[in-house]
Amino acid sequence: MQFHHNGYVSGDPTIQPVAGVGINRPEELPDVVDVLIVGTGPAGMITAAQLSQFPGITTRIVDRRAGRLEIGQADGIQARSVETFQAFGFADRITAEAYRITEMAFWKPDPSNPSNIIRTARAIDDATGVSEFPHLLVNQARVLDYFAEVMAHSPTRMTPDYGWEFDSLEVSDGDDYPVAVTLVRSAGEHVGESRIVRAKYVLGADGARSKVRDAIGCTLAGDQANHAWGVMDVLADTDFPDIRTKCAIQSSPGSILLIPREGGHLFRMYVDLGEVQAGAETSVRSTSIDQVIEKANEIMHPYRVDVKNVAWNSVYEVGHRLTSRFDDVRVEDQGIRSPRVFIAGDACHTHSAKAGQGMNVSMQDGFNLGWKIGHVLEGRSPESLLATYSAERQVIAKNLIDFDKEWSSLMATKPEDLADPTELEDFYVRTAEFPAGFMTEYAPSIVVADRSHQSLADGFPVGKRFKSATVRRVCDGNDLHLGHQATADGRWRIYVFAPTDTDGIARLRTFSDWMLESPASPVTATPATADVDDWFDVKVIFQQDHTQVDIAAVPRIFRPRVGEFQLVDLEKVYAADPYNDIFAARGIDRDGVVVVVRPDQYVAAVMPLSATNELGDFFAPLSTALTLH
Amino acid sequence: MQFHHNGYVSGDPTIQPVAGVGINRPEELPDVVDVLIVGTGPAGMITAAQLSQFPGITTRIVDRRAGRLEIGQADGIQARSVETFQAFGFADRITAEAYRITEMAFWKPDPSNPSNIIRTARAIDDATGVSEFPHLLVNQARVLDYFAEVMAHSPTRMTPDYGWEFDSLEVSDGDDYPVAVTLVRSAGEHVGESRIVRAKYVLGADGARSKVRDAIGCTLAGDQANHAWGVMDVLADTDFPDIRTKCAIQSSPGSILLIPREGGHLFRMYVDLGEVQAGAETSVRSTSIDQVIEKANEIMHPYRVDVKNVAWNSVYEVGHRLTSRFDDVRVEDQGIRSPRVFIAGDACHTHSAKAGQGMNVSMQDGFNLGWKIGHVLEGRSPESLLATYSAERQVIAKNLIDFDKEWSSLMATKPEDLADPTELEDFYVRTAEFPAGFMTEYAPSIVVADRSHQSLADGFPVGKRFKSATVRRVCDGNDLHLGHQATADGRWRIYVFAPTDTDGIARLRTFSDWMLESPASPVTATPATADVDDWFDVKVIFQQDHTQVDIAAVPRIFRPRVGEFQLVDLEKVYAADPYNDIFAARGIDRDGVVVVVRPDQYVAAVMPLSATNELGDFFAPLSTALTLH
Repeated sequence: MQFHHNGYVSGDPTIQPVAGVGINRPEELPDVVDVLIVGTGPAGMITAAQLSQFPGITTRIVDRRAGRLEIGQADGIQARSVETFQAFGFADRITAEAYRITEMAFWKPDPSNPSNIIRTARAIDDATGVSEFPHLLVNQARVLDYFAEVMAHSPTRMTPDYGWEFDSLEVSDGDDYPVAVTLVRSAGEHVGESRIVRAKYVLGADGARSKVRDAIGCTLAGDQANHAWGVMDVLADTDFPDIRTKCAIQSSPGSILLIPREGGHLFRMYVDLGEVQAGAETSVRSTSIDQVIEKANEIMHPYRVDVKNVAWNSVYEVGHRLTSRFDDVRVEDQGIRSPRVFIAGDACHTHSAKAGQGMNVSMQDGFNLGWKIGHVLEGRSPESLLATYSAERQVIAKNLIDFDKEWSSLMATKPEDLADPTELEDFYVRTAEFPAGFMTEYAPSIVVADRSHQSLADGFPVGKRFKSATVRRVCDGNDLHLGHQATADGRWRIYVFAPTDTDGIARLRTFSDWMLESPASPVTATPATADVDDWFDVKVIFQQDHTQVDIAAVPRIFRPRVGEFQLVDLEKVYAADPYNDIFAARGIDRDGVVVVVRPDQYVAAVMPLSATNELGDFFAPLSTALTLH
Repeated sequence: MQFHHNGYVSGDPTIQPVAGVGINRPEELPDVVDVLIVGTGPAGMITAAQLSQFPGITTRIVDRRAGRLEIGQADGIQARSVETFQAFGFADRITAEAYRITEMAFWKPDPSNPSNIIRTARAIDDATGVSEFPHLLVNQARVLDYFAEVMAHSPTRMTPDYGWEFDSLEVSDGDDYPVAVTLVRSAGEHVGESRIVRAKYVLGADGARSKVRDAIGCTLAGDQANHAWGVMDVLADTDFPDIRTKCAIQSSPGSILLIPREGGHLFRMYVDLGEVQAGAETSVRSTSIDQVIEKANEIMHPYRVDVKNVAWNSVYEVGHRLTSRFDDVRVEDQGIRSPRVFIAGDACHTHSAKAGQGMNVSMQDGFNLGWKIGHVLEGRSPESLLATYSAERQVIAKNLIDFDKEWSSLMATKPEDLADPTELEDFYVRTAEFPAGFMTEYAPSIVVADRSHQSLADGFPVGKRFKSATVRRVCDGNDLHLGHQATADGRWRIYVFAPTDTDGIARLRTFSDWMLESPASPVTATPATADVDDWFDVKVIFQQDHTQVDIAAVPRIFRPRVGEFQLVDLEKVYAADPYNDIFAARGIDRDGVVVVVRPDQYVAAVMPLSATNELGDFFAPLSTALTLH
């Protein structure tokens, strides 16, 4: 975190200086905005938080609710989401208040007395160390609170506009603000009054019953039947010994997924109520909380759960359904027009809650989209960038639904019907990378290069998220996670892993000069009024011990001058951590490698240090200022 | 952090439910308070933050400033202070915004060209791993902000009362509120108006020129002469390669202590201006910032420091001075009357800033005093407890001044005059535990038992702070630092390290029954209306793997029922961390050991599990309800 560089800042340095549209930001929703987001759930809020970092862009986010969400339904936070929170600056704080999953227990009927359940297995969460981040459980309302804080502390000082419900929209291509959105007052004095807000882009993050989705002619397709669970967040007196452990409990009367929750006492139970057949919806939906508690006690025999307080409960019915596209460009118009309206989150994909995926995948939808809209609106990139959102995320949603179908049907299978008694826990352990959020691998496109140089850095697979490792900062000897230095500020990252040969510094200087001076370099597109690292954050990592790096000899691109006083930023120069060499840990070629990482943390390209032409060619289609080599 | 246990809490769980005097807390300073603290510096604020946790106690803290401190002079945060911040809940956040010291560089004249300086040594900070917490640099203003937040989020919803200057006080023993303090309005509309506030106890944390100190007849004694430095917090363009590393620079023109600061660019320099002789004060004090910068450039030759912005600068003069007592009980009255007025921090001890100790020792003064006043006012403990404050802290201040004299005179010695060329860095490395804040070792008293059972737990020296180690929580398999589960809530901690022999559980049950039922047990003094763990937090640590602990068999004292629904708290039962066995790491006898830790984290006693009589006898003088065995 850099601050004080334009003069001493007395207060909280996480509150960024107000700038751009944040100065004199109107409290009332204006008639014309750059981006209108519908829905303050996880997908909408992360997109808003990302766009709030662009001082020149007016983004507003509306919700039909009268105010902040008090209690949400989602609670599973996969490690990839915590990694994302780190980029937004609140991973440590939400981790401190969350429940952390370290293992999962499996309970089944006691073979010698099948009316009693016993613990049959424990599985370590993330036994393979796929991430340095934890797997958490915390109410969705708190996740939204943190994103709201990020927005409020951003240069644009954003806050949600509550009490507006989406009604309809119309797109008139050719207009400066081509999307006309009709909103209706849903809270406050003027309930029912409607108005029109015009926008350049609209995001529908308005949930499974999305009206934005309907307005752009998308439909959810998939299962006909829904599966029903009784869900309850409760406080209870119980003799069940694993009440503070995540458990899958399967016995003859049915199955339970037990989710301990933050704060030391609250827990959630999903009690299986079975498939809902057509015509039986009403009776399932009328299942009372007492019936759910009774069923839970039957399943958990000989243990008892004496519920003392119900924080929230519901009968939860959902099928596996997916939309075929995430924007308003029909198949026949692809490549002809660019999207103006997007959808994200539950508006695109619905599935069971049992794998704890929904909120997480929804946030990655928004993280994928936010920077792309930002770059197009700022004139950094052409509109063609926007087509990659639907292309990238629709595949992920399909994978999610396939995974969740398998997991939830296994969860619902009676123990005696499993092919193998350990099938459930085996599946859980085998597939761990997927629910942790790290199986996403984007296909080649204008934002993902081909894999022709992958062997230069096997540990940074192109298309997957940049897996951080520790390095030592040269200027102050601090051991830091390299990836954690990349905040969600919309910048591209270019990591240069330096060669050690005798002309290593000379080769770095050649690279630096090209980056700073070549018309083919992406950096030269940066406006002259901005700091040289405003669009591209370029770091170097040396192989030698930090005491062996002469920081005064490091080329200019890695020591940019910044801010009002044009001071030298020394924090972009790293050395290998002597206890965990990143070159060895990530299989990085020692002859000099460039790794390009997108603003949403996905590896976009791996190439040799000398391949500046390729680097220029990769960025040319992403820049309004560059042309192909 | 336990929450939701009295029902779902929607918002930030670090904001505690309002209670006691926090309900309808008057905004205006009342005429009568329990505790009046003078001065919102580090010593005053930590005491206020500690007392804010006691819902029944009215504490107010006044300052002559009109509002929050904008920029402070202190910036060194030793690991012991970060440990303390952890107990108050903000260690992670302040660490994230601070500069972290990992090493110190020593620069001296180049032997082959003495007009140039060269780096002659680097010393690792905390090379011996005395603490799991970092050594930080961050402006004092931010430390105060965090304590203010702790107070505001406490049950008592405290905020400082700015704009009141201390004038005088009078103590009338026998009164319910025996201290009458005259305050004068120092800011706002009514400047100059005075009023009287009556208090049970008063703390003067009003700095080196403390008027409270004068009012109780204490004086600072020590050096006659002051030492002067030019101090500046600046932004600069420089070619000095270690500008982001803490450095001691010594050359013929003088010496500099360079302190990098938070935010990546700001740094502080202490430029030595020498001893101030009587009569020369005026000329030293008139040293201009330009002269200080010029001197810095002379010392650092051949490097240059081109200052672009001065955040703060001063000519700083201070001697080594100490008060003989920290309260208003004169030597002849010791044991006859109890103190009513205390002093802390710079009011008691002044010394150089170069060892980065002042703010840290001041906070430990306050942390030592806060809980003692709280326990006496709540009726838990007799007034005799209060005499231990001056007795314990005066010795520490004396040690500090001795240490600082040696360090600052070494820093001021010209390289050619040192007995050994590496004398400075050797001293720095050899004495690391002292400036890190961990050499404090309180002598036996009513709050520190004798060392007769020390061999049962060599790694927890009686009288020193409880050095944490990781353990695994049984109920959820989380690896946690045992010490970090002890927040600054004013409670005593009793850690029971369980035996493994076959009757281990039976012996724990005997202990548990005694704790819960014996009239000699400290726990039985807890009011019947409170939870059983409100005054004493009793935890157990098993030697075996967490999967081998049957939590259902753990005796009641370790699984108390809490809150409105009297739910069982399962989070007090731990097992050894399989990768770092606390029994081995801290030399704990495997036959069962009890470790008693004070609310300010100091080890008060070590004894065998069976020694319940001794445990009762230790607490008897500390309780208004117990008598000696």
